Amino acid sequence: MDDYLNGLWFMTGDPVADAEAAGTEGLVEAMRYSLLAGGKRIRPVLALATCQALGRDPDEIMPAAAAIELIHTYSLIHDDLPAMDDDDLRRGTPTCHVVYGDDVAILAGDALFAEGVRLVCEGQGGGPAVQVGILGEISRATGVVGMVGGQYLDIEDAGGSSADALARVHALKTGRLMAAAVHVALVLAPPPAAEDAAYRAFARELGLLFQIVDDILDVAGSEEELGKAVGTDERLGKVTYVSLHGMERARELAAESHARAIGLLDGVDGQVDDLAGIADTAFTRQS
Amino acid sequence: MDDYLNGLWFMTGDPVADAEAAGTEGLVEAMRYSLLAGGKRIRPVLALATCQALGRDPDEIMPAAAAIELIHTYSLIHDDLPAMDDDDLRRGTPTCHVVYGDDVAILAGDALFAEGVRLVCEGQGGGPAVQVGILGEISRATGVVGMVGGQYLDIEDAGGSSADALARVHALKTGRLMAAAVHVALVLAPPPAAEDAAYRAFARELGLLFQIVDDILDVAGSEEELGKAVGTDERLGKVTYVSLHGMERARELAAESHARAIGLLDGVDGQVDDLAGIADTAFTRQS
Repeated sequence: MDDYLNGLWFMTGDPVADAEAAGTEGLVEAMRYSLLAGGKRIRPVLALATCQALGRDPDEIMPAAAAIELIHTYSLIHDDLPAMDDDDLRRGTPTCHVVYGDDVAILAGDALFAEGVRLVCEGQGGGPAVQVGILGEISRATGVVGMVGGQYLDIEDAGGSSADALARVHALKTGRLMAAAVHVALVLAPPPAAEDAAYRAFARELGLLFQIVDDILDVAGSEEELGKAVGTDERLGKVTYVSLHGMERARELAAESHARAIGLLDGVDGQVDDLAGIADTAFTRQS
Repeated sequence: MDDYLNGLWFMTGDPVADAEAAGTEGLVEAMRYSLLAGGKRIRPVLALATCQALGRDPDEIMPAAAAIELIHTYSLIHDDLPAMDDDDLRRGTPTCHVVYGDDVAILAGDALFAEGVRLVCEGQGGGPAVQVGILGEISRATGVVGMVGGQYLDIEDAGGSSADALARVHALKTGRLMAAAVHVALVLAPPPAAEDAAYRAFARELGLLFQIVDDILDVAGSEEELGKAVGTDERLGKVTYVSLHGMERARELAAESHARAIGLLDGVDGQVDDLAGIADTAFTRQS
């Protein structure tokens, strides 16, 4: 994936793009800084694994998978801004705005979004109907009823502090884009309806599992392993699975979610070892 | 256009969207605030006029035209942020971040971008190939070699202070998206190659004309008519057509650009009265 990301035109520049982009090197550097800061790449890996499970060459979904990683990275850059969550450390390195300033960080995020859309338009195979289907999944997952709406609920506490409200914030803020990583492969290689439903339910469950473990690690994880500050949720007074249910119950909820995710893969015909491995990693990870 | 914008799902909400979007009303309000603050709508009007010149019902390009206005509005919201140009007044009203806070303004911009892409995916007619073609035009016009790259050059003075550098900043920052408004209609209803080239040259010229007049009005315009602060360029020490060439020569350059734009329409077969009218308005406007 990193090889692929490194090969994107705005990472290396072809001669034409170079001429058009002259002077924007500092912007591209900021985009590149955050994109290649060593994240887990869970979303693109999920897209590739789903594509494989559907019996297709994972490379076929690579442009859409990379686009989702670009868009995920944009959301991290904007979320870390002083005006938002005000985080100085991410993936073990200073956050984008700490290094490049708030203004360049805002623009780096904006540009990553645009280049993600462009990447699907110019690089994704399968024909226009597949491309539009993928961009529909991505745009729904990132707009008002997706990632950005979820971030709004999070910063405004607009959803309330109940368990349902918490689940909903996370479903929008992180679940939708993670699910979109599965969905884009389903658009490329549609399975029978029952399997499609199982894949989608797996995607939702994985998003939930990921969030519960995130909340646990924010309390119980080590800053060194995580590569970011711990205790952020408590500092910001955020409702989390741990603050709401306690650590012990949160760990049980994670185990239950992991079991459901693995169970859902039984409803699928393909080669799901990699998808199961992603669910295992999401459950057992320490960072 | 305002009727159309008002009818978008996130402006009124259909029952399904309402349930999914519950709690995000404040975000939608901030988007709506900036989108309906009474801008000139030059980009969507340009898309509709081009569609008409190409012999098609202007309504056919309405979703793409509205998407471009959503994206233009997102760029204004982000550009006005304290971390960027720090403008308190826009279109005669306090800017988005002044009313809703920097965090919500950042998210409102992000959401407008996503909803713009979604609108083309879900609302634009002409089939998937047309939709992807339109999103390709829009994403190229808004990424590193477009609007965001141009804004980077502008805030960083990375392009230098020559006349060429100035022209290039504006070509990227405002020219590309304005040109995209013409291009999306060309994607929907492709004319013969020679006419296509004339339309594209007209679009480029109009962007230039618009920018020269913008620079003139920032010095010579009235805050009341413009609905935004004047003298911003000078305060920020920006290179403009006026600072570079003086007011008299800037006015001549605007007249020359207007003449070229009108001349280019001679190379086109269609009903170009509305396009010529837009060029006239761009030249003579006082706000």
